[in-house]
Amino acid sequence: MRKTISVSINHLSKKYDIQVSDSLDKIINETTVFEKHSKIFILTDSNVADLYLESVVKMIRKNTDKEEIYSYIFEAGEKNKNLQTVKEIYEDMVKVGIDRSSIIVNLGGGVVTDMGGYAASTFLRGVPFINISTTLEGMVDASVGGKTGVNLDHNKNYIGTFTQPKAVFIDVSMLKTLPHRVLVQGYAEVLKHGIVADEQYFDDASRIPFIEMSIDQQIEIIASSIKIKSQVVEQDELESSYRKILNFGHTIGHVVESLSLETDDSLYHGEAVSIGMIAEAKICELSGMIDSKTFNKIEQSIINSGLPSRFKLTISSEDIYDLLISDKKNSNGVIKWTLLTGIGEAVVNVMIDKKFVMTAIEYIL
Amino acid sequence: MRKTISVSINHLSKKYDIQVSDSLDKIINETTVFEKHSKIFILTDSNVADLYLESVVKMIRKNTDKEEIYSYIFEAGEKNKNLQTVKEIYEDMVKVGIDRSSIIVNLGGGVVTDMGGYAASTFLRGVPFINISTTLEGMVDASVGGKTGVNLDHNKNYIGTFTQPKAVFIDVSMLKTLPHRVLVQGYAEVLKHGIVADEQYFDDASRIPFIEMSIDQQIEIIASSIKIKSQVVEQDELESSYRKILNFGHTIGHVVESLSLETDDSLYHGEAVSIGMIAEAKICELSGMIDSKTFNKIEQSIINSGLPSRFKLTISSEDIYDLLISDKKNSNGVIKWTLLTGIGEAVVNVMIDKKFVMTAIEYIL
Repeated sequence: MRKTISVSINHLSKKYDIQVSDSLDKIINETTVFEKHSKIFILTDSNVADLYLESVVKMIRKNTDKEEIYSYIFEAGEKNKNLQTVKEIYEDMVKVGIDRSSIIVNLGGGVVTDMGGYAASTFLRGVPFINISTTLEGMVDASVGGKTGVNLDHNKNYIGTFTQPKAVFIDVSMLKTLPHRVLVQGYAEVLKHGIVADEQYFDDASRIPFIEMSIDQQIEIIASSIKIKSQVVEQDELESSYRKILNFGHTIGHVVESLSLETDDSLYHGEAVSIGMIAEAKICELSGMIDSKTFNKIEQSIINSGLPSRFKLTISSEDIYDLLISDKKNSNGVIKWTLLTGIGEAVVNVMIDKKFVMTAIEYIL
Repeated sequence: MRKTISVSINHLSKKYDIQVSDSLDKIINETTVFEKHSKIFILTDSNVADLYLESVVKMIRKNTDKEEIYSYIFEAGEKNKNLQTVKEIYEDMVKVGIDRSSIIVNLGGGVVTDMGGYAASTFLRGVPFINISTTLEGMVDASVGGKTGVNLDHNKNYIGTFTQPKAVFIDVSMLKTLPHRVLVQGYAEVLKHGIVADEQYFDDASRIPFIEMSIDQQIEIIASSIKIKSQVVEQDELESSYRKILNFGHTIGHVVESLSLETDDSLYHGEAVSIGMIAEAKICELSGMIDSKTFNKIEQSIINSGLPSRFKLTISSEDIYDLLISDKKNSNGVIKWTLLTGIGEAVVNVMIDKKFVMTAIEYIL
């Protein structure tokens, strides 16, 4: 048994703890969160259910004598993160009599915690929920910040709320069951947190690949990543301005991701963000915001972590630029960039000459 | 032109104003709320659209040079207050490019403001909205407190959020177009606010029927009702305990309403609540919480306002009791009543001997 790090989050006037450890059993054994609620409703997807549902139910049964533990399993996959699945979850909650004295347990990656948090936050105007994150991306990104949501047709996360969980439980040993590529892509958000907000953390996270770290180092890296994101979110919970520093890499990354999803060789979110971060760091270099040494350090760290640095689709930089302009986030054809003035130093709402953007896009093609 | 009363609401750390006047034109002319937002999206139902949509659009055009004013009309009726209509609203919002810099205008009664508030609060994790209430019930009840929601199949308001509007605009002259019975049923909530929280207000509201009041008196009655509800909500925004005083009349009222909806002679919400208030005041009298004089005063005021005092369905008191017990709000078969120790003095979570409840039910049959 290694250490447990507890990160205390204070967002939207609500406090909750994120426990990071290598033993979910220990975390659940020590929590008092189930005692305060009558019924427990576990929401998970078909992949995670096969691996963990039975053992998580056992752990909860050991912790509490609550007899009413229900579970709902939906088919794994981003394509099911939609309003129809949410409606089916609501109907199951009605069937088993979930009310505001119950608690929802979202067990899974970002799709489960985003959608489960959304269902919980809107059922009876809000049933409390906790997240048990099972992916690296979920642990360092989706677990913090209170964003819940589902997709509306092809529009990602268009429907959602800002609602904080009661607690987040993270067991790094669950990462062992993740496919290698899925684990690695989650590391993009780890690096991003260092790049936009903490140079020391970026250096620590860049030293050796995540899978070569000891369990204690992994716990440390994940807990620190959560702390950094939490501090950013605390300063701007509803994403008015400063929180947008977390969008670094996501402007170009979003277009790259969308394009790749139409091919047979689709990219994971973290992979697209990695390519996006390199392109956007290149914009900073070209416009003189950072020097070449800093750019190289960022690019090298991404590559060393096993993340992609180039976009392999045959497409012109002009076509990518057009997609950037038409992205719904960029109103009136003006792109407001999140850029860097150094590692750990990000600025938001920057407007940049098209020529730098074009050269940066060509760089990643 | 009569006076405008502005009620300042401070809920969930957000402030907004409710303007009560006899001229929507004047209220809109003086507001700055549209200036701060790019696109305006008016949501209304087919009944209200016929009466007011064109004139409201004109008023807004006079106030602002915003060119992008969109409207969405859904078919009037409680049966359309559901997730399918919400999805269609979302899709229209995507089509016209609504984002967080836009503003939604919910123009209508409780169905429109409940559902429109819900759609706004969940689209892109929250687009600001204002309510223009066109029914008495909407003006005194739905406009205050931040409850948004839609029905899930037959479960009323099972899906929703607590989200405050940016502002509420009330023009009492709009009540002229309401059918008489719809207007009168809205008065049940007015009386209820007096009964549970303010005896002086109850006396003022009981003096003459609403339709015989002058416009200034109507403005005064509505503004005071809003103030009372607002003070209750401020003390317990998420309905943990004290806010439940607003449930007076609703425990039996809810069963009466549900039963009537299955007949050809269905009751409006306010009518069912009136019958419920008489039954629940009778429980207070029978159990010695209030004296007979107080009971009679409550009953007489309800009757004088043109509201029903008896339930005309042929059903046994035992059957009604069974429905009370199985109501989802009453967990484990225990009914927690909101009752009175006097006019203006309500208590919550009271448990009452079945014999008093049975006699009270028989009283209203």
